[in-house]
Amino acid sequence: MAETNVDRFDPGRDGWIDETLGHVRYGLRGKVLEDRHSALQRVTVVHTEAYGNALLLDGRWMTAERQERHYHEALVHPALCSAERIERVLIIGGGDGGTARQVLRHPSVEQVDMVEVDAVVVELCRRHLPDLGGDGWHDPRLRLSVGDGIAWAEQAAAASYDVVLVDGSDPAGPAEGLFNRSFFQHCRRLLRPGGVFATQSESPEAFRQLHIAMVRLLRELFGHADPLYGWVPMYPSGWWSWTFAALDGPRYRIARPERAAVVAAGCEIWSPRWQEGGFIAMAAGIARALDA
Amino acid sequence: MAETNVDRFDPGRDGWIDETLGHVRYGLRGKVLEDRHSALQRVTVVHTEAYGNALLLDGRWMTAERQERHYHEALVHPALCSAERIERVLIIGGGDGGTARQVLRHPSVEQVDMVEVDAVVVELCRRHLPDLGGDGWHDPRLRLSVGDGIAWAEQAAAASYDVVLVDGSDPAGPAEGLFNRSFFQHCRRLLRPGGVFATQSESPEAFRQLHIAMVRLLRELFGHADPLYGWVPMYPSGWWSWTFAALDGPRYRIARPERAAVVAAGCEIWSPRWQEGGFIAMAAGIARALDA
Repeated sequence: MAETNVDRFDPGRDGWIDETLGHVRYGLRGKVLEDRHSALQRVTVVHTEAYGNALLLDGRWMTAERQERHYHEALVHPALCSAERIERVLIIGGGDGGTARQVLRHPSVEQVDMVEVDAVVVELCRRHLPDLGGDGWHDPRLRLSVGDGIAWAEQAAAASYDVVLVDGSDPAGPAEGLFNRSFFQHCRRLLRPGGVFATQSESPEAFRQLHIAMVRLLRELFGHADPLYGWVPMYPSGWWSWTFAALDGPRYRIARPERAAVVAAGCEIWSPRWQEGGFIAMAAGIARALDA
Repeated sequence: MAETNVDRFDPGRDGWIDETLGHVRYGLRGKVLEDRHSALQRVTVVHTEAYGNALLLDGRWMTAERQERHYHEALVHPALCSAERIERVLIIGGGDGGTARQVLRHPSVEQVDMVEVDAVVVELCRRHLPDLGGDGWHDPRLRLSVGDGIAWAEQAAAASYDVVLVDGSDPAGPAEGLFNRSFFQHCRRLLRPGGVFATQSESPEAFRQLHIAMVRLLRELFGHADPLYGWVPMYPSGWWSWTFAALDGPRYRIARPERAAVVAAGCEIWSPRWQEGGFIAMAAGIARALDA
């Protein structure tokens, strides 16, 4: 659905590294540190002047040392602050380590299974963006598996996780299977009672139809689902969303004060207030499209 | 405070027109239609593939036909839906016509004084982006003055407007005087009882210190003021804000249903719901900085 610009990606020839999407581009000035082709995708690490070291997959900005909090705090804390229990957490994707680090800040978490499809992503992020995973990489609660997250979701036991987080890239290349009915059905199946599911759900501007389709599909499968709107400056349009669902109603909309209190002081973006606003701030045209 | 990139702006040589701010750039593919130097600034109109015809001032993206609603709906409707009366409205800046068009959609408005400093902006927008002002350009309620909005605010009679809207560019070049204490004090002086003031208040990411300083200054002058957070994809970081203040408390936070009902169906972004969320969705780090 979303085209890749890997063939047109020509990093750094003039000091600028641009992601081009259709007729729009977003560029950071910097210097390429590594540019490799894994078995699955092109993996590029850049030192950028504005945001520190940054990762691109197939020529698309994924994350950066000084911009990652917009994304990771938004995906993690609404789920971790609202699920009934948070002992067992599954992360599908997330090879940069940022999601795991935020999850592991919650002391009630006992085990995090992180299933990343591309070992090269983990290797290069640990080397060049080590603070994203931070202490999480050495936390005995983290179990990293390199493999297919879709197969993991199919094979794991029913009702085996309190929280399932999908931290994948856009639906082109290896992440394509993270956007369909069968995968989401398995994610739902994996949840314990009181569990919460969360996935990044693209931009309501740059990927409007995909965003709407994801929210509709999750609403159909869970009975309800709600997008949270926020900002990721390096993603197309800057306007981004994450969508949450749960087995027993929209519990993800309310952050439990005792859980929030543990992590809030360390957050730059997320707070119970920010989250409340982000769930409400649905643009008029998106609200009409979802009701239609 | 914010540097201008006018000297480095080299539009369209390779089919891309980029705004460069520090070590970040945002580009749209397109073709330059006009590139003029007015007495005050460089005024460039581009046909972009992604968003139709677009305006740059001193090499900075200002607006585009298919992206203007993010900005204009956010600036106008929270104020116009909440002021006690809305008979007399002052717009400082706004030469593209988008703010005036949204204001004039409210049938209770009797007179709109729009004070734009640069006649070339009005001329080129009316020629190349005519839908931004639309019917507003021919509405007998609109009184366009080409001149200095700061002098207008100094000279206008006290308590002579129900709503004062500041729709200026960044504080470099001709808009510099729109960001200081004296100007805001005069804007306050111009309000009738029950009146509402609104100004764009920059990006909490790309212009963080300026954003915080503006909110603090307006809180000091009015006793309270609240930023509304939204998105303008073509502005630095995509994350943008508008700040509202009133003489008698935060009345701007509640859209009157009867006013909202008249304009809501024609809005792509704004709705009472979107506005409610945008006022709440303050990032944790900004909230801490404002409380500090």
